[in-house]
Amino acid sequence: MSDKTKQDEPKVDAIIGAAQKRFAHYGLSKTTMTEIASDIGMGKASLYYYFPDKETLFEAVIIKEQTIFLEEMHTMLASGIEASTQLKKYVKMRSLLFTKYANLANLRSDSTDNSKPICARAMEGFRNKEIELVMTMLQNGITAKEFKRINKQEYSELLVNLLLGLRLVKMKYKEASTKFDVTDYEDLAKEGLKVVNMLVREIQTENA
Amino acid sequence: MSDKTKQDEPKVDAIIGAAQKRFAHYGLSKTTMTEIASDIGMGKASLYYYFPDKETLFEAVIIKEQTIFLEEMHTMLASGIEASTQLKKYVKMRSLLFTKYANLANLRSDSTDNSKPICARAMEGFRNKEIELVMTMLQNGITAKEFKRINKQEYSELLVNLLLGLRLVKMKYKEASTKFDVTDYEDLAKEGLKVVNMLVREIQTENA
Repeated sequence: MSDKTKQDEPKVDAIIGAAQKRFAHYGLSKTTMTEIASDIGMGKASLYYYFPDKETLFEAVIIKEQTIFLEEMHTMLASGIEASTQLKKYVKMRSLLFTKYANLANLRSDSTDNSKPICARAMEGFRNKEIELVMTMLQNGITAKEFKRINKQEYSELLVNLLLGLRLVKMKYKEASTKFDVTDYEDLAKEGLKVVNMLVREIQTENA
Repeated sequence: MSDKTKQDEPKVDAIIGAAQKRFAHYGLSKTTMTEIASDIGMGKASLYYYFPDKETLFEAVIIKEQTIFLEEMHTMLASGIEASTQLKKYVKMRSLLFTKYANLANLRSDSTDNSKPICARAMEGFRNKEIELVMTMLQNGITAKEFKRINKQEYSELLVNLLLGLRLVKMKYKEASTKFDVTDYEDLAKEGLKVVNMLVREIQTENA
């Protein structure tokens, strides 16, 4: 998409919007490019002009959902609240994220789609961005002398792995085809918050 | 097996031992009852007298591996060391367990076999036993006034979910067919230990 001009943006947005709904409802495998094109009254050839294949379009959808979350997070980070509160908000917003964005949420639960390299890449990419995000929060805390001078990389990876792990455990104990419901997300938010509280207690300075 | 007499025990042990090796090497799906019978020079009919099907035999193998671990854990619990040390030893022994017992370790990584109800039941059963075990350690700590009067059930589930979650995350980022190596287990033990340290800091009393 990088070589397309700026005036193509509304079209690209319309495609991504339609694809987002289709993928959310039917998953990657069961959605066709023809359906997406017809949803917005566009010819199939035009659609392929913007996105060479379904996987590239799916990746664009995932990146859109991730970007909105990351932007919300950066707004929160810039608000000047203390680092321990940032971490807690992150966990809450993260569990909300998966209720709002079906494609991000399904990324790890639909095993057929998960075998695709595109999903593995999207998962890995998002995980890395989350780790960076947590590192920023930890650095904020260290700068403000709220946190000890801990190994940021190590603790960020640990926190992101723990939060992701809690989701994976919950998936394991659900029927393969069942999606998460509100209670599941509330449970996850609660467990995640406990983890953050433990982490904060571990890393905060005496005077924090 | 419950209605078989005590003099059958050596035979049953031999069957389980042979099955343990076969399953560890080839997995549940790719092992046949004929191979197990032939490994110990037993007729197929005799094998079926002790175990009505392969799944029942696999369950017996899993229960054997779990039992050895749980016995080691109970010996450790009875040794009178302080509760926080018990928790740390549990995490270390748990990661060792998966290097020693291939069938328990593969239970969650072989997706073909995992679809079988027997695996789900074995996983769930072991998880519940681990939760009970952690509850005992937490109770030991509370009795010794080493830990606060926390909700044991809640914290036990959290710790077991976090440890299991760390393994699942690691599996996600491995090639589907690759088994864990020594470094993976060392990483897991290290991460698990960090989690226990955070937990202990959270729940210990002022005078502990």
